[in-house]
Amino acid sequence: MTRMTSIIKGGAAALAAGLVATPALAAVDAETAYVFNTFSFLIHGALVFFMAVGFAMLEAGLVRGKNVASICLKNTALYAVAAIGFYLVGYNLMYVDVTGWIGTFSFLYNPSEAESALIAAGADAATPEQVAAVIEGGYSVMSDWFFQVVFVATAASVISGTVAERMKIWPFMIFVALLGAFIYPIQASWVWGGGWLTEMGFSDFAGSTLVHSVGGWAALAGAIMVGARKGKFGADGRVHPLPGNNLPLATLGTFILWFGWFGFNGGSQLALGSALDAAAMSIVYANTFLAACAGVVTAMVMTQLIFKKIDLTMVLNGALAGLVAITAGPTLENMVLAMLVGAVGAALAVLAVPLVDKMKIDDVVGAISVHLVAGVWGTLAVGIFGSGSFVTQLIGVVAIGVYVLAVSFVIWGVLKATVGLRVSDEEELDGLDKHELGLEAYPEFGRGSQL
Amino acid sequence: MTRMTSIIKGGAAALAAGLVATPALAAVDAETAYVFNTFSFLIHGALVFFMAVGFAMLEAGLVRGKNVASICLKNTALYAVAAIGFYLVGYNLMYVDVTGWIGTFSFLYNPSEAESALIAAGADAATPEQVAAVIEGGYSVMSDWFFQVVFVATAASVISGTVAERMKIWPFMIFVALLGAFIYPIQASWVWGGGWLTEMGFSDFAGSTLVHSVGGWAALAGAIMVGARKGKFGADGRVHPLPGNNLPLATLGTFILWFGWFGFNGGSQLALGSALDAAAMSIVYANTFLAACAGVVTAMVMTQLIFKKIDLTMVLNGALAGLVAITAGPTLENMVLAMLVGAVGAALAVLAVPLVDKMKIDDVVGAISVHLVAGVWGTLAVGIFGSGSFVTQLIGVVAIGVYVLAVSFVIWGVLKATVGLRVSDEEELDGLDKHELGLEAYPEFGRGSQL
Amino acid sequence: MTRMTSIIKGGAAALAAGLVATPALAAVDAETAYVFNTFSFLIHGALVFFMAVGFAMLEAGLVRGKNVASICLKNTALYAVAAIGFYLVGYNLMYVDVTGWIGTFSFLYNPSEAESALIAAGADAATPEQVAAVIEGGYSVMSDWFFQVVFVATAASVISGTVAERMKIWPFMIFVALLGAFIYPIQASWVWGGGWLTEMGFSDFAGSTLVHSVGGWAALAGAIMVGARKGKFGADGRVHPLPGNNLPLATLGTFILWFGWFGFNGGSQLALGSALDAAAMSIVYANTFLAACAGVVTAMVMTQLIFKKIDLTMVLNGALAGLVAITAGPTLENMVLAMLVGAVGAALAVLAVPLVDKMKIDDVVGAISVHLVAGVWGTLAVGIFGSGSFVTQLIGVVAIGVYVLAVSFVIWGVLKATVGLRVSDEEELDGLDKHELGLEAYPEFGRGSQL
Repeated sequence: MTRMTSIIKGGAAALAAGLVATPALAAVDAETAYVFNTFSFLIHGALVFFMAVGFAMLEAGLVRGKNVASICLKNTALYAVAAIGFYLVGYNLMYVDVTGWIGTFSFLYNPSEAESALIAAGADAATPEQVAAVIEGGYSVMSDWFFQVVFVATAASVISGTVAERMKIWPFMIFVALLGAFIYPIQASWVWGGGWLTEMGFSDFAGSTLVHSVGGWAALAGAIMVGARKGKFGADGRVHPLPGNNLPLATLGTFILWFGWFGFNGGSQLALGSALDAAAMSIVYANTFLAACAGVVTAMVMTQLIFKKIDLTMVLNGALAGLVAITAGPTLENMVLAMLVGAVGAALAVLAVPLVDKMKIDDVVGAISVHLVAGVWGTLAVGIFGSGSFVTQLIGVVAIGVYVLAVSFVIWGVLKATVGLRVSDEEELDGLDKHELGLEAYPEFGRGSQL
Repeated sequence: MTRMTSIIKGGAAALAAGLVATPALAAVDAETAYVFNTFSFLIHGALVFFMAVGFAMLEAGLVRGKNVASICLKNTALYAVAAIGFYLVGYNLMYVDVTGWIGTFSFLYNPSEAESALIAAGADAATPEQVAAVIEGGYSVMSDWFFQVVFVATAASVISGTVAERMKIWPFMIFVALLGAFIYPIQASWVWGGGWLTEMGFSDFAGSTLVHSVGGWAALAGAIMVGARKGKFGADGRVHPLPGNNLPLATLGTFILWFGWFGFNGGSQLALGSALDAAAMSIVYANTFLAACAGVVTAMVMTQLIFKKIDLTMVLNGALAGLVAITAGPTLENMVLAMLVGAVGAALAVLAVPLVDKMKIDDVVGAISVHLVAGVWGTLAVGIFGSGSFVTQLIGVVAIGVYVLAVSFVIWGVLKATVGLRVSDEEELDGLDKHELGLEAYPEFGRGSQL
Repeated sequence: MTRMTSIIKGGAAALAAGLVATPALAAVDAETAYVFNTFSFLIHGALVFFMAVGFAMLEAGLVRGKNVASICLKNTALYAVAAIGFYLVGYNLMYVDVTGWIGTFSFLYNPSEAESALIAAGADAATPEQVAAVIEGGYSVMSDWFFQVVFVATAASVISGTVAERMKIWPFMIFVALLGAFIYPIQASWVWGGGWLTEMGFSDFAGSTLVHSVGGWAALAGAIMVGARKGKFGADGRVHPLPGNNLPLATLGTFILWFGWFGFNGGSQLALGSALDAAAMSIVYANTFLAACAGVVTAMVMTQLIFKKIDLTMVLNGALAGLVAITAGPTLENMVLAMLVGAVGAALAVLAVPLVDKMKIDDVVGAISVHLVAGVWGTLAVGIFGSGSFVTQLIGVVAIGVYVLAVSFVIWGVLKATVGLRVSDEEELDGLDKHELGLEAYPEFGRGSQL
């Protein structure tokens, strides 16, 4: 149908039906708002969940063929392990009665008593008081939990990419369990739990710092502790590229992440039950989209100018860096600024990749450049273009960075000293798939296992 | 933004706007509930639709390279064929005037007269009576049909994986058409159509039995009738693994299924137009998620202990078995129980795979272990942890199993005796892609067609 | 739960809660309608966005291995470039004060003043007048923009598939920028902007003509101007098939497109804030689904009869042709008609592929047959089965065809005469990945780069 004439259809239908007696009543009622808020958490949470396989495909495409099954396994398992850790204790540490520095240490997180009572009563027997007790919360308890839990694994997925192709599975899983249960929730309580950083005025809308740079810091510590892959850095100081085995998979992964990011940022509006929230959420969607577009174009132009060839993996990372950068403040009401934030994020990521190499830190998929560097930039950008204070933003970035880096070094260090972090040289040469999993990702495609 | 302060935003905005005159009116009106219920069917139905390619990728990854295009074709075509069968007669057999054992044999299913009248009148001319006649139904007729039709193909997808690599395309399609038009709807009418099993108290929230084990029973009959692939079972009784050609595709497929399962289970709440429904749907999402996580961890630990290596395909099947198991009763209000249901489902699937092999039943992707075994477990678990009776649950499982198995054996038998079920030995050796489709899935990747 | 008993749950809960004082008030209020309309744009827009990677995977699967990375890059970059062009000037040309033939030439498109004022006031301080000023629009400004921008890239994606494997990246990007900024919005203003074609009665619900055939015409001009791939057409006039390298990827891409099409067509209802809109949107979903199913079956049967083998790529294109065909008029209230529209669309596409070959036009993925031929058919079908006039539909098809074809020839021609459209023969032989990107898509999989 013609789009102009349908603009007013929604309201018009109600009016035409003669059912709206008093225009003064034309507002969202509390129960409807509860449903909207809850449904936003569920649908957006499902989109964020889907990012898991975005990371899996991105990383499966960028490692060598002999480590593909292993990285698929890690990405599947980290989701389960981080989520169970978050269910057991993480959510309570992050959100329940936060003292300023930490929430409550207690186990499990289940529906509220009011919700259970309403469900037990059933639709036909529920009293108005039972309904009112539920909708008072603004949204369903488990919808919020679901939306929160799917964020945890994002931080863990960042790490798996950086330390791919040489880290053992089980120590990695131990780290992920601790990340989901303790490391991530404690720092997140400082901001999203209403702790000291929020009281200071620090702002991170959907987690440039709280999610992405947390993953980046932990990955950085892990990459240093586990060391570089054999052959990555020559004795003469030269960097040898070890190209990814399957670039369409990496492209697929990037687009799945981009798609899921509408849930990541859009859902972080945390409410949909009013015109204000719906309008604000729309701005978040548009900014998220355009920041990624700007990141793509920036990486294209930069790699063309610097390398004389467009680098596909850099362009994909440019999209992701744009997304990471806008995540801290996708509320800008002039989308040109969002594009600027995304473009600078992508530019910094493109420049950071060779720098990280120069520091002899072996980051297989470029996750440190994308999630840490662009994440820091995006958080600071809130202090430049957004409503935040630059100094406060910087304090938050540093505080969380120091905390995560320190804790990560300790944990990686203990794991290294006890169970060991790294597979043997022979296992690394043959590939993790053969030794850790006893199979090949592509058993029929020839040279995969010999590379 | 800080998450704590935004909790009450939805309702607060309405109140702040001063538009809600009387808090006593703060409930979802009937037309809004109609829109919520309808939109839930549409969005969740789209997610369930997407599971089609989850099955396609899972199966394409787990067959050998020479049969990849054929399994892609089967998964694409089965969707179309099952859906058209369901549109032509299946929906009516399942839902319209169910006598207890079967619905109505009549053709097609289109919008209601009330809906057509409202749409014909248009937004500007519709009368309040016309609107009322529509919203009386609670949701739009075709949104419900859409949500139902996307379930049919799930059962068919289970079969295609089990009988892959040796069954001809056209007899398979004939079976699928009969499944979508008759086999699936008739047994579903016993429960979701309000028939005799529902009257007895049998409960299957989203189809552990009605969808997954139905596919599993039909697959079991098909596997027995078509026989094992050449080379799977040695003359000495040994089982020879025939490894899947592309494990990242299998990983992708598993995650797409997991993603779509939020629609499968979440949408099966069948309503979103009240706080009660929204709260209940959130519990379903959380349980679905955690049951899969528990399945992943269970399969990881079991394969590590039993085989001394983590088996990626078992871990993927563990996630799916957890999802299948929780599907009958994802309403548990203590998520630990959901994790237990998922973990046991995964454990049973891991144990069933070698058992099925031992019975010389060749199930290419492990679908019988995942969909039938875990589906039976999940249905019985409703009688253990949920509100159902164990005996009634068992009666439902057995009744549907006997019915589907018997009908399937007859149909597979007739097809075998007439058009034949199996490709020739030469065709099987060369691969179905070459003979049935006249092409290769990966024509440039070397040995694919010789394996 | 049993599906029959839950039908009335939504409304029942509200009634049971005793909160609905007067049934006469049971209509969607204006603010709730605003939220529904906005959320429909956002979620459906995200689904349409996801189609980008559907095209990318479809095309990556259907080109040869040596051009896979290049087609991934083009599909990523075209999205960014077309979107930025549309943000800068395109949206305003399409929707703002359309004179009949064109909208307004002005830069950027940001939230309305009313929305900014409401957001600045915040939930606690917003006045009823501020809320009313926002909801008057019916939906949020940026949600509409987001839903519109994701359509632009679809047209561009059609082109990239046709001219794959021999066109240079940068001239392609220049064309895409002009498409997103000018070519697409100007013709779209004639219909969706309320211009002369809408005034004449032309109808194109979601873009069989405005999106798909526009891409098809531009692709046709591009294919003629850039010429065929080396080796496609023999000196003796014979057509040599150059088979796609990865059919599961093509299958994946097709299903992602099908999934996203629910957003494409469903969201084009443009409103969700009433029972009428929800019922109409459900019909759109069901028709979209069934038209694709009919396309699949039609292509299966036709290729079996004509070639004696089922052609997987034709079946995938059959699904897409069914979807393209139904896009102009998915409002048919008898789904059999929708199946007929889809089946004829698929049949025409199957017949068009060899015809296009015979005309020595080299369309790598069959996009002209699918998007142009089926798009024209679908638009005309609105004049046969739907409410439109056949002559008016034909006028629209021809007018937009002539415009896009003429402008495209001029732009491709200028690009050819200046920067050149085509890579060198050596580059084409080696593959675009090696020369334009300096890498390989599958560096470990053997012969990819030599083919």
